[in-house]
Amino acid sequence: MWTMQATLTISSKNYSSWSLRGWLLCRMAGLDFEEIILSSDDPSTRAELLLLSPSFLVPRLTHGAVSVWDTLAIAAYLDELFPDTGLLPADRVQRAHCRSISGEMHSGFVNLRSALPMNLKAHYPGFKVWAGAQADIDRVASIWRDCFTTYGGPWLFGAKPTVADAMYAPVCTRFLTYDVKLDPACAAYCQTVMAWPVMQEWVTAAKAEPDDLDELDVEF
Amino acid sequence: MWTMQATLTISSKNYSSWSLRGWLLCRMAGLDFEEIILSSDDPSTRAELLLLSPSFLVPRLTHGAVSVWDTLAIAAYLDELFPDTGLLPADRVQRAHCRSISGEMHSGFVNLRSALPMNLKAHYPGFKVWAGAQADIDRVASIWRDCFTTYGGPWLFGAKPTVADAMYAPVCTRFLTYDVKLDPACAAYCQTVMAWPVMQEWVTAAKAEPDDLDELDVEF
Repeated sequence: MWTMQATLTISSKNYSSWSLRGWLLCRMAGLDFEEIILSSDDPSTRAELLLLSPSFLVPRLTHGAVSVWDTLAIAAYLDELFPDTGLLPADRVQRAHCRSISGEMHSGFVNLRSALPMNLKAHYPGFKVWAGAQADIDRVASIWRDCFTTYGGPWLFGAKPTVADAMYAPVCTRFLTYDVKLDPACAAYCQTVMAWPVMQEWVTAAKAEPDDLDELDVEF
Repeated sequence: MWTMQATLTISSKNYSSWSLRGWLLCRMAGLDFEEIILSSDDPSTRAELLLLSPSFLVPRLTHGAVSVWDTLAIAAYLDELFPDTGLLPADRVQRAHCRSISGEMHSGFVNLRSALPMNLKAHYPGFKVWAGAQADIDRVASIWRDCFTTYGGPWLFGAKPTVADAMYAPVCTRFLTYDVKLDPACAAYCQTVMAWPVMQEWVTAAKAEPDDLDELDVEF
């Protein structure tokens, strides 16, 4: 099982927050995988980046006969295969909490995702956040503070990153890109995530990505 | 563990598709639980039904010290507690497939969800579906047909309902409410779901619900 060939199909490292989440999960699990990066000419990539996709088919993990194309499904699959890597907390109550806030990120925060899309190359000091997106930001900060109070940080569930940190990692990049005002605990958490070695590896690759997606006219 | 008090907080049985999914999962798992139905006067219920909620905090399952408030997190929690109830397929490849299409429903199909909201009391013969929602409908039909071909029906993963059927059950009601044209296999699947005893129990309760939500001016 562990020696089967694995590939992870992703799209833009600069713009695709779902690709980042899936990639972080595979790295956290210690999976040996090849990346397949869809071109920006690919219609599904363009549809995703223009928020027009009827559903998100990247990231997609193939592993032997298994094909998994949803971020939370990838997390569950990897947790089954590699239960000792701590993708989920060991305690049942914490695991339910971790899955709840991961699921909330997965299905919610539509205003935040559309108004502050991930763009690792950009920085907009003084960016004006509209009220709908601010409500999402306030909810994210509330979720994080609840975790810090309960588990003591520096990661959401304590000493080590879990699925929840992979789910919220793109949000940290957005808060930095769009100069979002945060309380000290939330700001420190964003720094923890950005200093994560796998995160630094991704950001470096994103910044080296050709700028051929500019033509997409994504609304920032 | 099994004798701990369990409560499931939901909102409108007529309008809340997420409440229906969470409730079906609890019933499928055989959980003994009490329902708490939030009033339509509750601000979070109103926000959810007006699609204004920053995130969906119903359904919420509390079970002893555990609080789970996302539908997929509830499914994972119940699968851990009651592994023999078949919420997920026993085969690893099928389980990954089941989680993928459940995740796709959880995070996607935004056009379908906003243009054809669940409304079990209503029926709109000849309803005009706009192109964006039709793309979502086509994708749902493609997902279902793939399952029927692979596993033989009548449920998405064969002889028994799984998490995926709970996730797509509200979609079946929408297809009937809005008179959506379907191929025979997909139409038969909708009939299977609507004839499901737990589904009939829910629909009966929904139709008996007071109509005090009409004032919400939900756009149909």
